[in-house]
Amino acid sequence: MSSEVAPTKQKAAVYDKPGSISTKVVEINIPEPGEGEVLVRLTHSGVCHSDLSIMTNSWRTLPNPIEPGQIGGHEGVGKIVKFGPGVSGSYGLSLGDRVGIKWVNSACKQCAACLEGMDNICFNPKISGYGSPGTFQQYVIGPANYVTPIPDGVRSDEAAPLLCAGVTVYAALKRSKAQPGQWVLISGAGGGLGHLAVQIASKGMGLRVIGVDHGSKEGIARNSGAEHFIDITKYSADGSHKAISTDVKALTPGGLGVHAAVVCVASNAAYTQALLFLRFNGTLVCVGVPEHEPKAIASAYPALLMAKHLNVTGSSIGNQRDAIETLDFASRGIIKAHIQTTTLEGLTNAFERLHSGTLEGRIVIEL
Amino acid sequence: MSSEVAPTKQKAAVYDKPGSISTKVVEINIPEPGEGEVLVRLTHSGVCHSDLSIMTNSWRTLPNPIEPGQIGGHEGVGKIVKFGPGVSGSYGLSLGDRVGIKWVNSACKQCAACLEGMDNICFNPKISGYGSPGTFQQYVIGPANYVTPIPDGVRSDEAAPLLCAGVTVYAALKRSKAQPGQWVLISGAGGGLGHLAVQIASKGMGLRVIGVDHGSKEGIARNSGAEHFIDITKYSADGSHKAISTDVKALTPGGLGVHAAVVCVASNAAYTQALLFLRFNGTLVCVGVPEHEPKAIASAYPALLMAKHLNVTGSSIGNQRDAIETLDFASRGIIKAHIQTTTLEGLTNAFERLHSGTLEGRIVIEL
Amino acid sequence: MSSEVAPTKQKAAVYDKPGSISTKVVEINIPEPGEGEVLVRLTHSGVCHSDLSIMTNSWRTLPNPIEPGQIGGHEGVGKIVKFGPGVSGSYGLSLGDRVGIKWVNSACKQCAACLEGMDNICFNPKISGYGSPGTFQQYVIGPANYVTPIPDGVRSDEAAPLLCAGVTVYAALKRSKAQPGQWVLISGAGGGLGHLAVQIASKGMGLRVIGVDHGSKEGIARNSGAEHFIDITKYSADGSHKAISTDVKALTPGGLGVHAAVVCVASNAAYTQALLFLRFNGTLVCVGVPEHEPKAIASAYPALLMAKHLNVTGSSIGNQRDAIETLDFASRGIIKAHIQTTTLEGLTNAFERLHSGTLEGRIVIEL
Amino acid sequence: MSSEVAPTKQKAAVYDKPGSISTKVVEINIPEPGEGEVLVRLTHSGVCHSDLSIMTNSWRTLPNPIEPGQIGGHEGVGKIVKFGPGVSGSYGLSLGDRVGIKWVNSACKQCAACLEGMDNICFNPKISGYGSPGTFQQYVIGPANYVTPIPDGVRSDEAAPLLCAGVTVYAALKRSKAQPGQWVLISGAGGGLGHLAVQIASKGMGLRVIGVDHGSKEGIARNSGAEHFIDITKYSADGSHKAISTDVKALTPGGLGVHAAVVCVASNAAYTQALLFLRFNGTLVCVGVPEHEPKAIASAYPALLMAKHLNVTGSSIGNQRDAIETLDFASRGIIKAHIQTTTLEGLTNAFERLHSGTLEGRIVIEL
Repeated sequence: MSSEVAPTKQKAAVYDKPGSISTKVVEINIPEPGEGEVLVRLTHSGVCHSDLSIMTNSWRTLPNPIEPGQIGGHEGVGKIVKFGPGVSGSYGLSLGDRVGIKWVNSACKQCAACLEGMDNICFNPKISGYGSPGTFQQYVIGPANYVTPIPDGVRSDEAAPLLCAGVTVYAALKRSKAQPGQWVLISGAGGGLGHLAVQIASKGMGLRVIGVDHGSKEGIARNSGAEHFIDITKYSADGSHKAISTDVKALTPGGLGVHAAVVCVASNAAYTQALLFLRFNGTLVCVGVPEHEPKAIASAYPALLMAKHLNVTGSSIGNQRDAIETLDFASRGIIKAHIQTTTLEGLTNAFERLHSGTLEGRIVIEL
Repeated sequence: MSSEVAPTKQKAAVYDKPGSISTKVVEINIPEPGEGEVLVRLTHSGVCHSDLSIMTNSWRTLPNPIEPGQIGGHEGVGKIVKFGPGVSGSYGLSLGDRVGIKWVNSACKQCAACLEGMDNICFNPKISGYGSPGTFQQYVIGPANYVTPIPDGVRSDEAAPLLCAGVTVYAALKRSKAQPGQWVLISGAGGGLGHLAVQIASKGMGLRVIGVDHGSKEGIARNSGAEHFIDITKYSADGSHKAISTDVKALTPGGLGVHAAVVCVASNAAYTQALLFLRFNGTLVCVGVPEHEPKAIASAYPALLMAKHLNVTGSSIGNQRDAIETLDFASRGIIKAHIQTTTLEGLTNAFERLHSGTLEGRIVIEL
Repeated sequence: MSSEVAPTKQKAAVYDKPGSISTKVVEINIPEPGEGEVLVRLTHSGVCHSDLSIMTNSWRTLPNPIEPGQIGGHEGVGKIVKFGPGVSGSYGLSLGDRVGIKWVNSACKQCAACLEGMDNICFNPKISGYGSPGTFQQYVIGPANYVTPIPDGVRSDEAAPLLCAGVTVYAALKRSKAQPGQWVLISGAGGGLGHLAVQIASKGMGLRVIGVDHGSKEGIARNSGAEHFIDITKYSADGSHKAISTDVKALTPGGLGVHAAVVCVASNAAYTQALLFLRFNGTLVCVGVPEHEPKAIASAYPALLMAKHLNVTGSSIGNQRDAIETLDFASRGIIKAHIQTTTLEGLTNAFERLHSGTLEGRIVIEL
Repeated sequence: MSSEVAPTKQKAAVYDKPGSISTKVVEINIPEPGEGEVLVRLTHSGVCHSDLSIMTNSWRTLPNPIEPGQIGGHEGVGKIVKFGPGVSGSYGLSLGDRVGIKWVNSACKQCAACLEGMDNICFNPKISGYGSPGTFQQYVIGPANYVTPIPDGVRSDEAAPLLCAGVTVYAALKRSKAQPGQWVLISGAGGGLGHLAVQIASKGMGLRVIGVDHGSKEGIARNSGAEHFIDITKYSADGSHKAISTDVKALTPGGLGVHAAVVCVASNAAYTQALLFLRFNGTLVCVGVPEHEPKAIASAYPALLMAKHLNVTGSSIGNQRDAIETLDFASRGIIKAHIQTTTLEGLTNAFERLHSGTLEGRIVIEL
């Protein structure tokens, strides 16, 4: 590329005390791309709640806890600086192209899940920041056929959280099967995931949105495109499910309820309520993962599901196609993540703020 | 029709002590068909577990208990003997045609559910045997545009249970979205609903079936078309969910599990297990309604649904189109209900046997 | 209703010389609603190109030419002034409700098409203005279960053309299966059908629109929401298909073409071109009906359809559900028909202007 | 692998005179698998009509004619004898595994078509026997992630034609969207493609089949599972379209026509007729490619497509998932290709017989 000497060392933030909120910045070697791979000089990485859950071993569903020294992060954006063998000319990529690194860094593309278009749940993946080195470093490796091109018109810092949070809510909205003109309820409408869901649903997909969240989030929810807002703090904990359900239904045509509810928060109560909001043949999409004391959805009674032909489904991030489409929405100005930036050295603090639940929007690290 | 004097009185069985298993045969007037209605001389009526639940007030989801004097039954077959005003010539029906009466005796065809093809959950229905007079009588009224023609090649006694049990499992199988060549698990594969589900799935829809039931039902399940059979009595109550799941998965390609599970039994445990059997993106269809102590599906954790993109849905009987298609399968010999016949006077005894859970196949009353 | 004497006579415009463009205003009796029907005092009726085709016997696909005296029109809006027997209380309607009368005035709701949700191609319909009296009169009969409620927020004059033109393009867009964020091309983007298609697609369904029409229509097409416009008059007749195709593709991502093309004009050439515009797996939806010398779609080669997995489908008006949804879009301000009003006496002139092809938007008669 | 010396030379049949039916057997080097590739010792290759079309330059839609020396063939079956770099352990393959080579030898898995599950129309493919060396040789290279595993229970000679002909008709039947219990018409029901379509449809997918072909093929069509057979030779050329249509419709419920028609023959007339056979909302799937004088589908009038909501679509081979599913049907005995075997030296003669149109079933070369 040029005659200047390429660097060989880089900075990375590692989880030094898995189980606790703690990261340490270290100097490590820049990795070398293998056959079919590219080396990306990251400029930004989002910080996702999933990183926090992994660092603190709070998800019971993960097969193994991480080891000390794990480099986290899975929302990386940067430029391709080196091709591994075999890449040149055959993947439609050029040196200097901006690309993104996702939760699934690499999908096998031949397992049953990949063959059925669900590379996001590939059976043989490399996961960024869980097992494989993530995006809390300056250089990362990705497969030439699976990094996600970043279109012009999307800033790199804003693109980062879209690669996980944005894709996740877009895929969930698709999975809801809600059609243009129909109503969708977003639980956690002002949160990191939720405000993006509201934007894509209302401005991108022709859906009408009822946002549900703490009253302090009403502004961001409405600015994102929610036509109605339900402040859950106004309901007493006792008996609130039924009262909220009554109010939600009153906002929908014929009082029938919403066509879909996408739960973006990690709250057992939100799941219990959501089934009660639904219109006949409506769909609840699970996106938020309750930590610590997850419960089965307390309203998932067969008789209720039958009486109204209700549907419940789970959605986990999204596939490569979803990622490309999400960034296309972003390039048109339809989605714009609310972000705050920090540095690798500020990562521990960022996680603490994330843990406190008071954060608005998403944190992005400048690398 | 003829010069003979039309009868004016008929026999009917009423629920004389709602809450208990008790019926009484009485003599009542034959009703008169109104505008757009037909009078049907029933020859057969199936006896369904739902009738038992209604008579004994065991379903918590029904809005109101029945009154003494209710005529139950919702699987009636007979011949049209009289047209109400406006029917002649305009509904494609002739006097003497064999038709069926279903759970939804009449659908409004203009509510949101009807407009979306779900007349089975019509908002303004008349329900046979719950509120409206059912099919435990010799003559019944039905709408000319909603009675279901019985094709040649299906005996009336065999058609009766297909109008509810048959339609229910066919609609549930469609709702499962399982495709030809894929695997579906039927819980309660030897029961009144289950054996029909196995037949339609395996012989009619190109699906491959794993039947699950008590070992005594293995014969009927396999004769109905199950390729594999799991005898649930072979598992200890303690820890059985995981063990059964392991065994089910071992029967499927790659050990991935079944594409769909249709729970035809009223068992909380069956629902808990069924989610564990599923392949990624698989679907659990709820058909059986647990009585008395219904529980939410104990395995319906958001994280599980998300990790494997699982789906849960409820299906309640089926619409008019499903009924026509079910009878078409029957006319080709693909479905054949196992039936035992009795009389109106034997109805109380039939309910007692149904309640005991020892019944194989379905009971049909000859009227 | 009131003590004032109800009128018994009304004005109507009849086709007095079928085959020619000619109508005559006559005085006739106000009809009486039968069982399940309502009498509607119409205030407005749209004038559709289909009326012209019927009057002049220009559609070869219609089974029979009309008789002199036929009252045309199938886009009627007015208020319910009388219930036929059996309607009161049981159809959710009140006297004074605003309702619409559509091309299919009455659907049987029991034929195969109706059971499959296609009441718009009901086998036993009454057609407004073709066989049955249409909406070019002051009073018309409609079935209580099939008139379309007009929501608040939609003016009656603007609602009229939506009942046919609006529904037609909305149903066609749904049938195209184009998803939010995808590209759809509208042929005839500035016409009576086309400008509504552009509005619903771009503002209601999250689709991105390329409009194609004569250059004079660019303004209305762009104002309706087209992001790009192709002026077909800029292409020489010779070889224009390929040149237009090249230009259309250049406007789409990767130069792949549009996901769907909806041909709203009655032009054989538009059909030929449209298949060439399509992206792989794209869909051509036929809406406009070429008159006089209709041709098979000249580019519908099996090899072309196969190589790109293309789809061609036809869409004819829409069902009752589509009508309700179309009016819901209108009540939100998403669709707004460009209309010009006239009177029953001005109908012949209106048809002449329609025939000349110079009309912008739709004509609505005030009744 | 073993201590025996691996061969370095092999036999191959090349097209020595493109444009004519002529092949020559030559000795060439055995190729070496690259990164991610495997070397397959072929034991069988099917001979497909597409090979004939390519050899004789009869398809107008192919971008370039082939060069002399092209090795044709795209239905290869054999055993993996060597792994290229990087394959060992990471693709779920073992040396000695039986695998198949398809028309698309290699798909890029990152283009828009691949991302949308249509790797069969990948934008960057290697095509077996057209540009890339095909399967008319003893050793061939394939990508580890795209060769198709051959399940136990399928003989290699019978598997070969399933990799193209079998996959093609299965994918076409899926694309028809015909559902279990519905009627599908197969044009060319006794041919190489057609008899497989009849088998999969009737025995695998729960569809009911009307076969159409020359009377001499009635036996194979009926043995394959056709319930009805139409002998096209019984109709005069003049006016035959309408007469056949009348007879087909008479075989279907209500005389409405078939839900889908799959045209497996390269006949313009078959396409013209097929649209006339269809039930409302029915689908014509294009599979056969007329040579020499292809025509647009002569009945594809917009007005006809609209009046009955008809659909036309093209299907081209199938994707990797379709291939796996087709072989799964075969392993259950549902599909069994009628084959005749020959040798590489007999290939020219095989093509001549194929060209004559008198061949029953498929020809397979033993290698």
